[in-house]
Amino acid sequence: MIRAGIIGATGYTGYELVQIFERHPEVQVVFATSESYAGKCYAEVYPCPYNQRLIALDQAPLNQVDVVFLCTPHGTSALLAQQVLDAGARCIDLSADFRLRDVAVYEKWYKPHPVPGLLPEAVYGLPEVYASQIAEARLIANPGCYPTGPLLALYPLLQAGIIQDQRLILDAKSGVSGAGAAPSPKTHFVNVHDNLSVYNAGHSHRHVPEIEQELQRFAGRHVRVVFTPHLLPVSRGILTTIYITVDPSVQASDIVALWQKAYAGQPCVHILPAGETATLAHTVYTNRCALSLTSAGAEGEFILVTSIDNLIKGASGQAVQNMNLMFGLNQTLGLIV
Amino acid sequence: MIRAGIIGATGYTGYELVQIFERHPEVQVVFATSESYAGKCYAEVYPCPYNQRLIALDQAPLNQVDVVFLCTPHGTSALLAQQVLDAGARCIDLSADFRLRDVAVYEKWYKPHPVPGLLPEAVYGLPEVYASQIAEARLIANPGCYPTGPLLALYPLLQAGIIQDQRLILDAKSGVSGAGAAPSPKTHFVNVHDNLSVYNAGHSHRHVPEIEQELQRFAGRHVRVVFTPHLLPVSRGILTTIYITVDPSVQASDIVALWQKAYAGQPCVHILPAGETATLAHTVYTNRCALSLTSAGAEGEFILVTSIDNLIKGASGQAVQNMNLMFGLNQTLGLIV
Amino acid sequence: MIRAGIIGATGYTGYELVQIFERHPEVQVVFATSESYAGKCYAEVYPCPYNQRLIALDQAPLNQVDVVFLCTPHGTSALLAQQVLDAGARCIDLSADFRLRDVAVYEKWYKPHPVPGLLPEAVYGLPEVYASQIAEARLIANPGCYPTGPLLALYPLLQAGIIQDQRLILDAKSGVSGAGAAPSPKTHFVNVHDNLSVYNAGHSHRHVPEIEQELQRFAGRHVRVVFTPHLLPVSRGILTTIYITVDPSVQASDIVALWQKAYAGQPCVHILPAGETATLAHTVYTNRCALSLTSAGAEGEFILVTSIDNLIKGASGQAVQNMNLMFGLNQTLGLIV
Amino acid sequence: MIRAGIIGATGYTGYELVQIFERHPEVQVVFATSESYAGKCYAEVYPCPYNQRLIALDQAPLNQVDVVFLCTPHGTSALLAQQVLDAGARCIDLSADFRLRDVAVYEKWYKPHPVPGLLPEAVYGLPEVYASQIAEARLIANPGCYPTGPLLALYPLLQAGIIQDQRLILDAKSGVSGAGAAPSPKTHFVNVHDNLSVYNAGHSHRHVPEIEQELQRFAGRHVRVVFTPHLLPVSRGILTTIYITVDPSVQASDIVALWQKAYAGQPCVHILPAGETATLAHTVYTNRCALSLTSAGAEGEFILVTSIDNLIKGASGQAVQNMNLMFGLNQTLGLIV
Repeated sequence: MIRAGIIGATGYTGYELVQIFERHPEVQVVFATSESYAGKCYAEVYPCPYNQRLIALDQAPLNQVDVVFLCTPHGTSALLAQQVLDAGARCIDLSADFRLRDVAVYEKWYKPHPVPGLLPEAVYGLPEVYASQIAEARLIANPGCYPTGPLLALYPLLQAGIIQDQRLILDAKSGVSGAGAAPSPKTHFVNVHDNLSVYNAGHSHRHVPEIEQELQRFAGRHVRVVFTPHLLPVSRGILTTIYITVDPSVQASDIVALWQKAYAGQPCVHILPAGETATLAHTVYTNRCALSLTSAGAEGEFILVTSIDNLIKGASGQAVQNMNLMFGLNQTLGLIV
Repeated sequence: MIRAGIIGATGYTGYELVQIFERHPEVQVVFATSESYAGKCYAEVYPCPYNQRLIALDQAPLNQVDVVFLCTPHGTSALLAQQVLDAGARCIDLSADFRLRDVAVYEKWYKPHPVPGLLPEAVYGLPEVYASQIAEARLIANPGCYPTGPLLALYPLLQAGIIQDQRLILDAKSGVSGAGAAPSPKTHFVNVHDNLSVYNAGHSHRHVPEIEQELQRFAGRHVRVVFTPHLLPVSRGILTTIYITVDPSVQASDIVALWQKAYAGQPCVHILPAGETATLAHTVYTNRCALSLTSAGAEGEFILVTSIDNLIKGASGQAVQNMNLMFGLNQTLGLIV
Repeated sequence: MIRAGIIGATGYTGYELVQIFERHPEVQVVFATSESYAGKCYAEVYPCPYNQRLIALDQAPLNQVDVVFLCTPHGTSALLAQQVLDAGARCIDLSADFRLRDVAVYEKWYKPHPVPGLLPEAVYGLPEVYASQIAEARLIANPGCYPTGPLLALYPLLQAGIIQDQRLILDAKSGVSGAGAAPSPKTHFVNVHDNLSVYNAGHSHRHVPEIEQELQRFAGRHVRVVFTPHLLPVSRGILTTIYITVDPSVQASDIVALWQKAYAGQPCVHILPAGETATLAHTVYTNRCALSLTSAGAEGEFILVTSIDNLIKGASGQAVQNMNLMFGLNQTLGLIV
Repeated sequence: MIRAGIIGATGYTGYELVQIFERHPEVQVVFATSESYAGKCYAEVYPCPYNQRLIALDQAPLNQVDVVFLCTPHGTSALLAQQVLDAGARCIDLSADFRLRDVAVYEKWYKPHPVPGLLPEAVYGLPEVYASQIAEARLIANPGCYPTGPLLALYPLLQAGIIQDQRLILDAKSGVSGAGAAPSPKTHFVNVHDNLSVYNAGHSHRHVPEIEQELQRFAGRHVRVVFTPHLLPVSRGILTTIYITVDPSVQASDIVALWQKAYAGQPCVHILPAGETATLAHTVYTNRCALSLTSAGAEGEFILVTSIDNLIKGASGQAVQNMNLMFGLNQTLGLIV
């Protein structure tokens, strides 16, 4: 039985973790912390029957757990990760603090890194790409919600060197839970419902450097993205439409073959057959990533569509998938795929 | 041309008024005030092209307008109403401050009334019932969003004395705009979308005394309501399902006949034919109130269903309807019916 | 390992069963039939990765399974149930064919019963009430989606004899999946979205006799319901608001105590603490039924609110709960509670 | 008073026309036809109080009207247009039959054109571009819903010759009313709600040749589009995200200046100030087209976002705008802008 702790357990990713662990046969949640709700039980915070009592962070017995999930904001997470590791537990950080390998890039997009010394050992937790490093890691940087789908769509293609674009257009659409549980005009029902809006378009969203970092590792060359996040009137799910150009000799079947080879035996990647297109419904409430391919109407031009559930494969489900790998379990244990 | 002012113009009822006045041929908006957005133009607050510049309340030229709409909270409205009347303008208050004729009832549900001396002259602004008083009024208490539909459904029936219930069950369902524009957990998209919840059920919602006051006036006897508001995952609209018992000799056609007689020539009341039931779609984005009747399965038992748009017939549209009556215009001028 | 078959596997209840069995550790789906999609695999019908091949009904090896789930329409189910039992398997029927114990009532609301001889042995599959009979049953009549919540809310109260009403008002609100997967004007997105409508109100919905039958068994006396189903703009979930009158000496805490006693140890019933009200969010995507209680504002008058997921606790989840009981398993195995 | 007829009045565009004409001061609807609902009144078809009686097409007095709106499918419209013109009325066709100037292109995307002889005199009804021709026209080809926004966004830029792309990516998102009122799996609530899907992506949607035709006229050169329509879980509205490359010396302010010059005095085009982005909420329920501009993160790279209401500026509102121009009225008469 893996003994787990959750810090920051009353945000959406914390709630999702608690729900997953309710049905995970090998995890016992030893503690869950919340600054706002310490002393309350979980059922008083979310519409559920869970009796888990929330405690304050300083009461958390870090030395009595095997792994800690950090559902805390960037900046805060890095300091906590150090404490967790010092206490002898492994750490899965759902914030951005360890995703960017280059501290200078981190500091350009965020602020001074509180614990830069930990960056070198952090492993980027994309299981379909980095499984062996994840298995050995003490510290996992769980990917952002937006990057996961596009990275899985593009990884085999960039590795194979077939993509010609220097600049990739990613037109992304996300549900509102991606904006977090804090009330704001942006998350007010009346502003979102029946609406569609664009925010942080171009090269300004903080997931841009994370996406570019990984794409460049896959490709071994410079790649730039144009990234346009849209806010959808749904609670969950991200669908990303990606426009690529390849050598005109490359056929759709070649691309699908690359996907199939890269993800053979991977239970969380669902490659759709020709003629079908990924939708949110393919993945919400599961830990799947769906991939599909369509011709853009000219030789060598294709449209990739990929979807995930932003809270599961885009956050807490992927964190559990990482944990499963770290502890030698079947990677989908406790997950719906 | 009627010169109008709007105080508190950046809440939902203020925005709705501004939209109506954009197409009202006989109204010029002389000023619109906002404490939060003074100095900005309307297009910076809502997704619209309106150039109207918002001003601070203390800059509002009350003596240069014919009528002022108060879209301010209860407590605040009463004091402003006095100022408006003192400046020589007529006043339509969309808050609760002048809806309850009995100051003791007001003070039980709210707090001490700031200007109780104005209560006697306030007219309850339900045009289909009180048109002649409205025409003469200086001060209108615009009805609450929840009361409007049930009052119109029950008015002719209580007047005719056919309803036997001492206690009426009103099962009401409202869209989220009824909760106002302020962000809160209650209005967070993720909490409302795909959900349905009950709040202030029984006898605890502040619209209860307003409904009971009017029902008792219509009936000339004591009437109690059990009122269960539900929050719907829609932005606009209220549908109320009402359970009544009448003398077994009363037929459905008798009830419809009472409605037809009471609302003959009333452009904003839409009485559905037998076999059809009012839906939100019958009324949203219009100033209509839809009424329908269904047998509850036994003689003398009926279900009334009524719907309105909470921001139009339930607030700003009804306010404009009142204004039209006050200034001798066609009561639907500028309104969609 | 329980060998299961699903007949009519491509409606919503069939799809939900397939999803549940994907994570149920003790069930193997031996066959799934579909008239429309025979020959296709499941992933071609629903947005999922399941490879289960659909077969025509006449190819179904009824004698190779332990249990068959009938997701077929009333009228059809009864005949199939006979075949299933003849082949030696147990049968869980999700249609209405065996819910009404009195064939005359069935024939009043439906049409002549195809296999009336099976009615006496059918067990009404409400596990929290009839667990011991379910465990022994060959043939289960799985409850309708609307009855489940109100029956669980009212069962302990009627058994205790505290409810005074001869006539109970049930104001019910359901998501669209309750209307089935067949396209129609009623299920067209534009007609449902942003709308709320009433249908089959009063005493005309086919779940009325089922509700009344069970309430009368609980109470040991005649009980009539006024039942008003509303169609909500959500995909899943039913919330029912019930108005009851009890002896004025009965307190809220007495009612909650009755619930707690009746459902002690029942993992699928979630009784909310005083002051909280059941919402759809308490139960969707789970096999829970939530119960809550509010004062209606006068002594002895209460409002019960109950919610379930119509496809899970209201259909396929409850069917699996019944199956678990029939085969001696933990009743929530494979279910999310 | 303009005497108007509507053929095919019970689809969504017909209903929208009827709603607009309810408040248009200069139009009298002389007839409205429907094959399915002939003999019924409008209130029996849609949730509204309109008493307009629907008639069969062969009863329509074409010679008693000044203008006929064809809300009929392509193929059917062309033949009706000929009859309308022969009867002496002017004709506004909302189908695709007269949008493509080159009959060969039409026949590639549709089928043989029934009345190719009328093509030369048809005017493409985009009022902000072709106002003078529209004013004189007997026959208007009302634009498709998808083309309107992108054409208005790109027209001044292509005319000025600043766009360098040979291939323009248009990532479009539409509400469900664009799919029409006929029930189908594609429009079933459960399939659309909480979902986002892509259809006819690349170069396969029938609005592609229409968009390319007009872009090429604006640019005076070959332009290809990659067009990816997404189906949004909303009833109304289209938002299109367009990726363009211009000479690096061109600044955002230059582009806005081109828009402002082209659309000076145009009441239906809403150019957003720098820093704001068009949303559906800017335009739904109005005849506006919103335009906004964002940097794509590199010199010379921009993202245009444009939104309209697909049933108003994308169909019936634009048709009325065309009619107003044809009859010498203010182009926004009866429209909400």
